[in-house]
Amino acid sequence: MRIAVLASGEGTNLQALLDRVHGRDGIALVAVASDKPGARALERARAVGVESSVFPLERYGDRAARDRAMATWLAGQGAELIVLAGYMQLLSPGFLRRFDGRVINVHPALLPAFPGLRAIEQALDYGVKVFGVTVHFVDEGIDSGPVLLQRAVELPSARTVEEVRERLAPIEHELLPEAVRLIASGAVRIDADNPRRVVIER
Amino acid sequence: MRIAVLASGEGTNLQALLDRVHGRDGIALVAVASDKPGARALERARAVGVESSVFPLERYGDRAARDRAMATWLAGQGAELIVLAGYMQLLSPGFLRRFDGRVINVHPALLPAFPGLRAIEQALDYGVKVFGVTVHFVDEGIDSGPVLLQRAVELPSARTVEEVRERLAPIEHELLPEAVRLIASGAVRIDADNPRRVVIER
Repeated sequence: MRIAVLASGEGTNLQALLDRVHGRDGIALVAVASDKPGARALERARAVGVESSVFPLERYGDRAARDRAMATWLAGQGAELIVLAGYMQLLSPGFLRRFDGRVINVHPALLPAFPGLRAIEQALDYGVKVFGVTVHFVDEGIDSGPVLLQRAVELPSARTVEEVRERLAPIEHELLPEAVRLIASGAVRIDADNPRRVVIER
Repeated sequence: MRIAVLASGEGTNLQALLDRVHGRDGIALVAVASDKPGARALERARAVGVESSVFPLERYGDRAARDRAMATWLAGQGAELIVLAGYMQLLSPGFLRRFDGRVINVHPALLPAFPGLRAIEQALDYGVKVFGVTVHFVDEGIDSGPVLLQRAVELPSARTVEEVRERLAPIEHELLPEAVRLIASGAVRIDADNPRRVVIER
């Protein structure tokens, strides 16, 4: 399975995918795209010889046009699964239709709690005692698609975004590659009785 | 500390409190109230000689009047902490003002996800992979008060309310007594920087 990664920042989840699934079990990371010209994720891709390209909004006028160009480029690289790894833009409906059911995202909260930006801040502000990570299919809503994998961590005394992020990052780096492996191996399907429920046959 | 329990149904959380904190560490369960005349919780109270009383809405005309009568009865029993254990009614603002910051509830979800009725059904419908239990202070919203304790359980293959309830019930029976013990021992305070954050000093 040929996968592509979209990232806006550091690219630590991209690195986890490069380290843990790229080149194994018939999985190849074939393309990295970003909305941010300076994203460190692009460097990480170049460092291992993975094709990369940047699609800043300014260059295309609007999101739909940018996403059309990006989708065309990704399809040209043969991408079969699109993995959002710290990609900070909402994808347009046209993009999602083109890769229907083949876009996943990792989010630093136990969805449906704390969707959107600054999830860890939201959770700390609320005063939760359990934090977590969700990998989900992407639909047109904000972090609202069907859940693939979730893992929780009890941090009853957590006070700062940094200490929570430090605990969640290794979980993200484990769950996202796991989700890619499961999809690539054909273990993932949608429950016939509930389209929200993702069934995983391990 | 003298505690009172409000319950609408079976009273298994009441039983956990009777078994695990009643008569220990200076904690006495002094009153059980219900909105439902037939609630099994009332029997459990009688069986161990704890005062009980029933406050059906029909007898009082409206919720505010019912809650006034109930608050007066509870205060008369010397209740210092009110524990909702499967109490299916929303408490009126007057009741909450009278026991300000001294009402707690147990909820079978990781709040703020899935507040209100049928929390487990809501979670299954959403398709979550992590379920859990929250003990929280009660405010005027629906399951919206500050979180005292939370515990998560990963049930990625859960399909039915029964199997999830079976896993959450023992967690409720542990967390609710633990919350009562912590409050009674003076270990619980509100963070001066964030009134949503409950600090527990163990």
